Amino acid sequence: MKKIINDPADVVVDALRGMAAAHPDLLWVRTDPAFVTRSDSPVRDKVALVSGGGSGHEPLHVGFVGTGMLDAAVPGPVFTSPTPDAVQTAVREADGGAGTLLVVKNYTGDVLNFETAAELVQAEDVGVRTVVVRDDVAVRDSTDTAGRRGVGGTVLLEKIIGAAAERGRDLADCHATAQRVAENVRSMGVALSAPTVPHLGEPSFTLAEEEMEIGIGIHGEPGRERVGLESADGIVRRLLEPVLEDLPFREGDQVLLFTNSMGATPLSELYLAHGIAERMLADRGVRVTRRLVGPYVTSLEMRGMSLTLLKLDEELTRLWDDPVRTPALTW
Amino acid sequence: MKKIINDPADVVVDALRGMAAAHPDLLWVRTDPAFVTRSDSPVRDKVALVSGGGSGHEPLHVGFVGTGMLDAAVPGPVFTSPTPDAVQTAVREADGGAGTLLVVKNYTGDVLNFETAAELVQAEDVGVRTVVVRDDVAVRDSTDTAGRRGVGGTVLLEKIIGAAAERGRDLADCHATAQRVAENVRSMGVALSAPTVPHLGEPSFTLAEEEMEIGIGIHGEPGRERVGLESADGIVRRLLEPVLEDLPFREGDQVLLFTNSMGATPLSELYLAHGIAERMLADRGVRVTRRLVGPYVTSLEMRGMSLTLLKLDEELTRLWDDPVRTPALTW
Repeated sequence: MKKIINDPADVVVDALRGMAAAHPDLLWVRTDPAFVTRSDSPVRDKVALVSGGGSGHEPLHVGFVGTGMLDAAVPGPVFTSPTPDAVQTAVREADGGAGTLLVVKNYTGDVLNFETAAELVQAEDVGVRTVVVRDDVAVRDSTDTAGRRGVGGTVLLEKIIGAAAERGRDLADCHATAQRVAENVRSMGVALSAPTVPHLGEPSFTLAEEEMEIGIGIHGEPGRERVGLESADGIVRRLLEPVLEDLPFREGDQVLLFTNSMGATPLSELYLAHGIAERMLADRGVRVTRRLVGPYVTSLEMRGMSLTLLKLDEELTRLWDDPVRTPALTW
Repeated sequence: MKKIINDPADVVVDALRGMAAAHPDLLWVRTDPAFVTRSDSPVRDKVALVSGGGSGHEPLHVGFVGTGMLDAAVPGPVFTSPTPDAVQTAVREADGGAGTLLVVKNYTGDVLNFETAAELVQAEDVGVRTVVVRDDVAVRDSTDTAGRRGVGGTVLLEKIIGAAAERGRDLADCHATAQRVAENVRSMGVALSAPTVPHLGEPSFTLAEEEMEIGIGIHGEPGRERVGLESADGIVRRLLEPVLEDLPFREGDQVLLFTNSMGATPLSELYLAHGIAERMLADRGVRVTRRLVGPYVTSLEMRGMSLTLLKLDEELTRLWDDPVRTPALTW
């Protein structure tokens, strides 16, 4: 196993220490339990946005903590949900009196532990609402979920609702807008290679030299089908068509196109794929008015990519454009 | 060869088309010859900062075009210098009448072709100066250089001199400040795996499962030594000590620490390594006052990292802090 780590059991805490050193102005990092808050947290009378989940998808979620996005992120062990008490502690630190919105990706462990955490903080008279992201069109149920998995759409939701909260909107409004984002976002991914979980030491699965897995999850869960490697045109078409058909996205729709690297895909390949997706969307009359291209929801050193489409309206576009200042997203 | 590409001969132009689609507000992209300028280029009466070199190191240089950094970037084929006429055309488009500073990494082909380009544009009465970056302490000469290679320090120089130019400083001042950055920056890298050049189709070299190459170049050129894989503590020490000894960096010095991924290293491992480097520097009394952590000078899908230290003074710190807005760096 080739990794730049010390003890595999300590990778999450060791990486958090590095984040704390790298971003002293933006982040406040705690390691027991492990969570990250904005350095100015709690922000008085602002809805707190809190997310989390298994580590290994960096920068999701810890890299999205900051002004205009998350108030706190709770990283579990690699590919493993954080405990309810870690989430509870993070919410307690982040909540500024206007309530907390929890952003949960639809994995059984995350849903269960965030639900338990919500009950614990409600007992402390903190107002809590939850939005569950389930944007992956690849499979309805998988190893780790009941219903669709939450993947790339999570980043877009966190940015947009982070802006809504920063604008001073109340918890009911943030929750309703978050639901609207969740209902209008769809994703699909492909893997060219497998990730290796540090404490396991072996790749999560194997793909032959000429194989790829279409519809892969961000933990390397099986996808729709394993097929021969294709050109970038073919790969992008295999991701984009099921996404378009699902909502569906129609001619004249305005969309945000998010071209995401699963970790080890060179940026040049990602831009190349993004360009193809833009042309295919133009051919169908779908109008790309906003874009995000980069490694934002990864699966350790997995090679591959995902495409996410979010149907935009004026309000979601304005919230997307609002300023944001986090380690991984800034404008 | 597992890549998300169409024809291997077209990867650079195909990726540029994707960049153009992704950043219509920031960039103006040309494909014959291939170069990228700021969308508002030429900026009247501002010194133009122009760089370039072989592709495969993205976001370097094309991702650093924008306000407060490069006016133009000229990408050659993968790991191959751009032609003098491509550089000449880019300078002609970028120069706003206050002259152009060329930022060149010290590789034989780049130095030669940028020198020829400088002669061509001087014949057109454009004022041109050149700064050559040679920050890699690993080896004095390598396959592709006479003298030290230019690596991570290039990003820091482009950011700082981009700010100086944006502030309206003249060509002589920008050139002198660039020389000062070049003299005070040192880097060293390590590879855990090799990159594969698309039109070659095979990895540039092979490393056994338990091997790593210390002092690697960004094209996979041989380094100082091939050793057994070590812990993150060991790896960071092997990179940091030669860097510290070289300038040398001394107790009390203020530095910018740049922890760079060679491409496929997970962000969590990069932060982990950054945290170790910060602690080792603190132990020696070297004060880290600015940081950059991420994949900024890559070698396609190479696994590995580099550490760069820049000795700061008040002026360089102010220029570093100035606003920047490019695809890859924004604050």
